[in-house]
Order: sequence, then structure tokens, then C-alpha cells
Amino acid sequence: MVIECVPNVSEGRRPEIVAAIADAIRAVNGVRLLDHSSDPSHHRSVFTLAGDAAGVERAVLALFERAVADVDLRTHRGEHPRMGAVDVVPFVPIEGITMAECVALAREVGAAVAERFGVPVFLYEEASANPARKNLEDIRRGEFEGLAAKMRNAEWTPDFGPAVPHPSAGASVIGARMPLIAYNINLDTNRLDVAKKIAAAIRHSSGGLRYVKAAGFMLEDRGVAQVSMNLTNYEKTPIFRVFEIVKREAARYGVSILESEIVGLVPSAALTAAAEFYLQIERFGPEQVLENKLK
Amino acid sequence: MVIECVPNVSEGRRPEIVAAIADAIRAVNGVRLLDHSSDPSHHRSVFTLAGDAAGVERAVLALFERAVADVDLRTHRGEHPRMGAVDVVPFVPIEGITMAECVALAREVGAAVAERFGVPVFLYEEASANPARKNLEDIRRGEFEGLAAKMRNAEWTPDFGPAVPHPSAGASVIGARMPLIAYNINLDTNRLDVAKKIAAAIRHSSGGLRYVKAAGFMLEDRGVAQVSMNLTNYEKTPIFRVFEIVKREAARYGVSILESEIVGLVPSAALTAAAEFYLQIERFGPEQVLENKLK
Repeated sequence: MVIECVPNVSEGRRPEIVAAIADAIRAVNGVRLLDHSSDPSHHRSVFTLAGDAAGVERAVLALFERAVADVDLRTHRGEHPRMGAVDVVPFVPIEGITMAECVALAREVGAAVAERFGVPVFLYEEASANPARKNLEDIRRGEFEGLAAKMRNAEWTPDFGPAVPHPSAGASVIGARMPLIAYNINLDTNRLDVAKKIAAAIRHSSGGLRYVKAAGFMLEDRGVAQVSMNLTNYEKTPIFRVFEIVKREAARYGVSILESEIVGLVPSAALTAAAEFYLQIERFGPEQVLENKLK
Repeated sequence: MVIECVPNVSEGRRPEIVAAIADAIRAVNGVRLLDHSSDPSHHRSVFTLAGDAAGVERAVLALFERAVADVDLRTHRGEHPRMGAVDVVPFVPIEGITMAECVALAREVGAAVAERFGVPVFLYEEASANPARKNLEDIRRGEFEGLAAKMRNAEWTPDFGPAVPHPSAGASVIGARMPLIAYNINLDTNRLDVAKKIAAAIRHSSGGLRYVKAAGFMLEDRGVAQVSMNLTNYEKTPIFRVFEIVKREAARYGVSILESEIVGLVPSAALTAAAEFYLQIERFGPEQVLENKLK
């Protein structure tokens, strides 16, 4: 069983604090710290860990212990919005685990965090049953500074823990989501308006595919217009469908696709699905992928 | 490091002998028996194992020990051609190992087999430097019954071991090759002649792509003509190129592709390459595949 977990901590300037959190995670059995990176201007660090349910839970609690002790939002200023010392903790099902099990894990960890550290916890994304409390941005609006006032409204009673913010650590958002794929398509044109029109056609918010966020940008140094996207559920909105629609929309303006790019990590299954689509492969299952047999 | 090894043993009728070989492999550290299957009419069993170099070498020697003791080719009759109790042993680089290292391993195992069991060993495929002794079919021609006469010719001096066959175990062919992909494309037609013409166009032996073997067949129950292929080096002759050429050749006869299918296992990278091709993905590396980070 492999669960990915990507906690975001509101500390990106003191390397010794970040290192202490990383060491605390590494000391936990059943989990591996795959990566961590800090952004001083955002004043924020992102940790990527992977393990089984018990391992990931222990690691998140170890991370909370250090972050709640060492981060004080009352004096924290950075570019990135935040409302908690541990700001957001998504659990992502990778292998041998369902989304429902990741939701159950998010609830279990949320309850443990609230009890052990006195930090209020809001569930988000798949772990939230409340449509007004699914999006991180909605929950975090007003940030740490507006949190006490926001929580006086009964609509913002936390899912776990006290009805008021932790004095220094604020509140945390914990939940479950699919892996994100950062996917860009570069157009063989310098016409930014074409990229913007295609982005509007493809993204969910303006009538497009359900699990696509998109915007048009200009790569100034190359003179290339780009449709920049986040694919938030590659099983339900697969990469190949996004690519084909963008290609068709671009053709309407006489523009072709120069290239596409995946930024960061992509689950193997997202690429395999594209191969199956284009090669018209029938009667194929993940057990036929050699690497899956070797696990 | 992962090496796949697929020894073929000339025993497919006595389950207790096959089980004893499987148990001998399972008792070895550093290697896993992924699969084994026996064909009574072929009188042959295929074992699929995976592990590091030391583990795979120990497993092959353990397999030889049992097979040389229990299989006697003087009384062996089956449909499948064979010349050894252990007929052929290919080492296949999967991950963290080069072809050159698999060739070195094949030589090391070949020398050990010859010394320990007195079985002559012929190197084949990538492990052979002699063009006349690269193809298994060329080396095995004449089979066990013709082996003693064949080996009297200096052209058939083995790479390791005695210049005469082992009395009961014959000789073994050991080498290194890329993973095979069994890949079929079904045409939206019942015209067998179209499948045969496309097979002739695509296969290496009649002027096509270097690492393609192909034949045309009729799926009688479905009334569907099939181009049935073995892809012997998916890095140099990728699946997508084969698919696109078959599609183009079929169009010349007014025929479209109904579907394709992969029979058995396929390395993840063979499918990823197809996704990269069709999605025009640039600046992508295997380290971006999430599962590779989890290893």
C-alpha cells in the first residue's frame, strides 16, 4: 500500500527548523521522505512523503509536533496565503488503497491532531461532505489573521478540535485528493489571445472539462503562447482528452501544437492511459505492466 | 537493480519435477520466482524470475542442478524444439542495469554452468559476438539428436565447457536480450490477404522495421484479420511507430484498425514512450514518473 502525503508547513526561512521537521519524519518507520523544498519569499515548505497508512499517520503527527512548537503565525509574514503552522495536509492514494480509505485516514489524523495539539482541523476536498468547505481557497480565505472572526460563524465550526484557533498555530486543513498533474501545452504561435481562448474553452470554471484548471500565458523568452493547466483527476479527465480538445480548438485559429510538458511528477497510469487510447489497446490491465509484477 | 531471467526447461509433463525446480529457485535469496508454466505437449516449462545479478545467478545454478539431475533428453519427446535439459536462459535488463552488464552476467553464468555441470554452453543474442550464433533457432537447429554431429564441426565449438554434448543434458544456450513485447493489431476486415501484406511490409525479414517479427492470421471466430507481431527491442523500434505504419498500410486497402492488444507483460517505459509521442511531451524523464520515485 502506498499513500502519498504532501504537508505544507508555514516556515521557509529558518533551515534548521525545516531540517528538524525532516529529521522527525525520517525517524518514523513505514514512511519515506521523498522530497522537501522551501521557499523563503513564500515563507513555506512542502514535504513529500510516501508510506502505508500507519507510517504516514505517525509522520504527520511527528511533523505537527515540531511545527506547532516552532512556528508562530502571529509573527509570520510571507507571500503565500496560510492559516496554520501546518497549513494543509493532503493524503493521495497511489497504490493498493482507495480514495475512501484515504478519506478515513484524513479523518483519523484530523481527530488525532485536534486531540493531541489542540489545533482545530477542517476537512477538505474528498474528505469534506460540505460543498462550501471542499476547496482549500474557500476554507483559507481571510487567512490566520481573519480566522478567529471567521470561526465565530457556526458555518466555520471545525470538523475536529476547539471552536477557536490555536493561539500560535492557527488551524489546519486536512483531506484527501487525487494526484495533481501540472500539464502545459505550448502552441506554435505568439498569440496570447489564442492561448487564453483555449484555456477558457477547456477549464471547468468556464464550461470545460470537470477536472481541469487552465490559464493562458506567454513564454516571453521563446515567443510562445502556453495553455497552462492543472489536471486534478487524471482518471476522470484523462490527459489525452485534454490534449485532443486543445489541439482541435487551436486548429480553429490555424494554430498547431508545438509540444506539451509535464511539470514535476505524474502517475504511471496517467501515461499508460494515453498509450492505450492512441494505440487502441483492448483487454489490457495493470497486471500486464512488468514493473507491477516486480513489486 | 532488476534483471529478469526466463529459463526454459525441457520438462513439461512431470509436475513434481517442475515443482522441485520452482522450490529450488524460491529457496534462493535475492531473486523472486514471478511465474512458471508448463506445456505437456511441448514437454517444456518456462520460469520467470527477477532479482539482482547475484540472486539471478544463484537461482539459475540451482535450476541447472535440478534439471540436469532429473531431465534426460535421450528419452524426451515433445513438440517444441530443444537441445538441452535447460534449453535456453536469457537475461533481460529491466532497471538499474545495462545490456552490457547483462552480457557479462550471461558469460559468468555460462562459465559456471560449464564448470559445475559439464554442460557445453553457447552464448546467444546480445551475448554472442558471432553473427552465425546470435539467433536461438540457428544454434538449436538439429536439436539434441543432431548435436553431437554438429559439435564435431569447429564452427560449433561451444563458448564454455566440453566440445561434446552432455550425455543426458545436451547443451544450453545462454545470453542477454531486450524484453519481448507480443503485440497484435486487429484490422476492421476479414481479408486475411491484407493482414499478410501488412505483416510483410512491417517485418524486418522482408524489408521492414529492424526489431519486428510479424505474420498475418485470421481470428476465425470473430471474422477479423490480425497482424501478429513480436517486438524484440522496444527502445529502438517503438510500439507507436509500428502502430502508425500498420495504420497507414491498412488505409491503402481502405481498412482501418479495429484495436490492438498486448499479450502478456510490457515494460512501463514502452507505454510511456507512446504517451510522449502522441502527446508531444518534451523535457520529460523517467524520474518524473511517480512510481519511480517510490522505489
